[in-house]
Amino acid sequence: MDIKDYCLNLAKRAQAAGRRVMTSSGVQRAQALRAIAAALIEHTPELRDANAKDMAAGEAAGLSGAMLDRLKLDDKVIRKMADSVIQIAAQVDPVGQVIEGNIRPNGVRLQKVRVPIGVVLFIYESRPNVTSDAAALCVKSGNAIILRGGKEAIHSNTALVKVIRDAVAKAGLDADAVQFVETPDRAAIGELLKLEGLIDLCVPRGGESLIRAVVEQSRIPVIKHYTGNCHVYVDQRCDEAMAVAICVNAKVQRPGVCNAAETLLFHKSALDSGLFVKAMNALAEQKVEIRGCERTRAAFPAAKPAGEADWGTEFLDLIVAVRVVDSLDEAIDHINKYGSKHTDAIVTHDLAAADAFVARVDSANVFVNCSTRLSDGGEYGLGAEIGISTDKLHARGPMGAADLTTYKWVGYGSGQIRS
Amino acid sequence: MDIKDYCLNLAKRAQAAGRRVMTSSGVQRAQALRAIAAALIEHTPELRDANAKDMAAGEAAGLSGAMLDRLKLDDKVIRKMADSVIQIAAQVDPVGQVIEGNIRPNGVRLQKVRVPIGVVLFIYESRPNVTSDAAALCVKSGNAIILRGGKEAIHSNTALVKVIRDAVAKAGLDADAVQFVETPDRAAIGELLKLEGLIDLCVPRGGESLIRAVVEQSRIPVIKHYTGNCHVYVDQRCDEAMAVAICVNAKVQRPGVCNAAETLLFHKSALDSGLFVKAMNALAEQKVEIRGCERTRAAFPAAKPAGEADWGTEFLDLIVAVRVVDSLDEAIDHINKYGSKHTDAIVTHDLAAADAFVARVDSANVFVNCSTRLSDGGEYGLGAEIGISTDKLHARGPMGAADLTTYKWVGYGSGQIRS
Repeated sequence: MDIKDYCLNLAKRAQAAGRRVMTSSGVQRAQALRAIAAALIEHTPELRDANAKDMAAGEAAGLSGAMLDRLKLDDKVIRKMADSVIQIAAQVDPVGQVIEGNIRPNGVRLQKVRVPIGVVLFIYESRPNVTSDAAALCVKSGNAIILRGGKEAIHSNTALVKVIRDAVAKAGLDADAVQFVETPDRAAIGELLKLEGLIDLCVPRGGESLIRAVVEQSRIPVIKHYTGNCHVYVDQRCDEAMAVAICVNAKVQRPGVCNAAETLLFHKSALDSGLFVKAMNALAEQKVEIRGCERTRAAFPAAKPAGEADWGTEFLDLIVAVRVVDSLDEAIDHINKYGSKHTDAIVTHDLAAADAFVARVDSANVFVNCSTRLSDGGEYGLGAEIGISTDKLHARGPMGAADLTTYKWVGYGSGQIRS
Repeated sequence: MDIKDYCLNLAKRAQAAGRRVMTSSGVQRAQALRAIAAALIEHTPELRDANAKDMAAGEAAGLSGAMLDRLKLDDKVIRKMADSVIQIAAQVDPVGQVIEGNIRPNGVRLQKVRVPIGVVLFIYESRPNVTSDAAALCVKSGNAIILRGGKEAIHSNTALVKVIRDAVAKAGLDADAVQFVETPDRAAIGELLKLEGLIDLCVPRGGESLIRAVVEQSRIPVIKHYTGNCHVYVDQRCDEAMAVAICVNAKVQRPGVCNAAETLLFHKSALDSGLFVKAMNALAEQKVEIRGCERTRAAFPAAKPAGEADWGTEFLDLIVAVRVVDSLDEAIDHINKYGSKHTDAIVTHDLAAADAFVARVDSANVFVNCSTRLSDGGEYGLGAEIGISTDKLHARGPMGAADLTTYKWVGYGSGQIRS
């Protein structure tokens, strides 16, 4: 079978299954999720074996230690995956919620009712634990999912999808609601992205080049999950210890993830107060490489010079760009110019500054006096997330099960016509 | 200036203005809308004069009577446009609404707050009255808009946009929040659709070929407003008079619009009961051309034969496709196969049939016992609409001011970090 037919058949099966899952009960879908969690634990040995093949191939291919770490499935990771699926199962069922409703003057009872989207194409990279989260979120919300993982995780994902599909079927739902693109052929992505009548939404999650390629090709609506170029701005009036703690936590606590800070902005008053040097020392103690503007380097000579490109870079590493600004306005303009609309924080005691920052920073998550690392589905109480949307349409920020639904308008009448 | 620079400058001005309008107050935006309404009335003579040029050009170019009718701006149409803007001004302000919020276990106060999207590119065809509705909805919701109307309405739209911009400026808002693409050059659309960092959303409204071209080219998220292939299904158990009235109203009351019915489906029991022939006669009396399946033609020989293409056609005229089905399931499958996910209705007394139809018909608007003609922003209490979305993402069905907003997550902390 050629790749075009393969993709078409996959999507048709997904749509047919999606239409059946759409009308299943929430109880049944939660049962399917609990069955998936139990099966992940039960089949841990097979999953580990499959993963070992990916790990061996990855080592042979010279993947970095960080990449291999993300790829690895051990007992602990698999237990966490199962826990996450159980948490999703326990969430309130989004399907069928009446978002709003009223009786129109003509007597029609009008309701805006939450319903599944249909078929979601999820394109992601190396981490196989994302496979179970994404499948669970889609089944929870009554959708079918087509999973397209990274080629490095192909054995792990194949084994995971088998376990998940078997569990879904055992729970009485249609296993075809969870589809997996088995071929590593890149052409499959292009073919799938043409199937606008069959696939309702594409969620790409991974590097910027992957996401740009998807956006260029797709005729299907895409919700982009660009990784984050996040900022912390330390305002003129703030608690010094809090400012240092937030800067360090935002950069250092887990530098390889999207909600870690990449640029720190300081009001110039921090130069005189000594706060600036304290913050730089605290970062240097944590072995963070500092790339600074001229004023940064004058106050903290150990800093390397920051180039224009550094302001737009997501380092995902122990590197931070630092800039001293003259005003809150300059900080906001910097963030709106260089940021990726993901997560940005201000540290301030000044209510007017906080309000201006919140109103004018055009990002999915805007924080006052807390770390950018807190923008996350778990921290927000959404359970797992399929990703953190940097788009403005449909879903913004952490995307949970409810964000994988749409709505329909239902009108109940008694013969009303239009005059 | 070449077309690329022209579009880039337009979008940059819109973004800058959008960022200012974003933080204006709701009172100020409502005032701007009332100023627009007053200005439309005040400048009626100039608007009529500009429109006369379009009408003359349209007549010379041989536009159909229906097209010329849509193009025409007379006192009555302009008064209606002003009324619509006043209604939008009077709506609850969507910006700043807290959609949900709670205090997280770590003490962070988390709020999901409705905010403007930013810059909306609105591409539409001939009706100039849409210009004021779209501009008013965008200003109401704190956005900037780039208007790209049909070339037939270029003089009318140029005059309208001047009136609207002057009124916006007089009310103390930034006139650049309302931008108009003055060149009829089609290349402008292609250039604008590349500007993903400047324009946040594209709403195309018009013929299917226009919308398909936009989707193919766009790197900006698009909410599609395909015109409608709407259905009425007459179930086995129903009120005969209601069924006939709804079929006739859905087809005849205004056949040229998207929520008019294009196909009627009858349960086979209607053949024996006589309901089917009554309905056909009622349609024929209204001069509706009936294109039927074999059973239709056997029961009502005046019907022409329906071909496969008729099931998928939006006639927008006094033509209807009619099919007799064996079951509710067959009706639902027909609608999901041939429909355009716009508006579909069932006429039934059977609660189980109503529930199944509502749950399984995958359309933006699903009605029980009322006419498809009721799916409309005005009928839903949304005021004017920028269109009726046939997409599933972000907004589905009639799209009012609130649908031109997104949200941001705002977290208020007191030094919280992630451990």
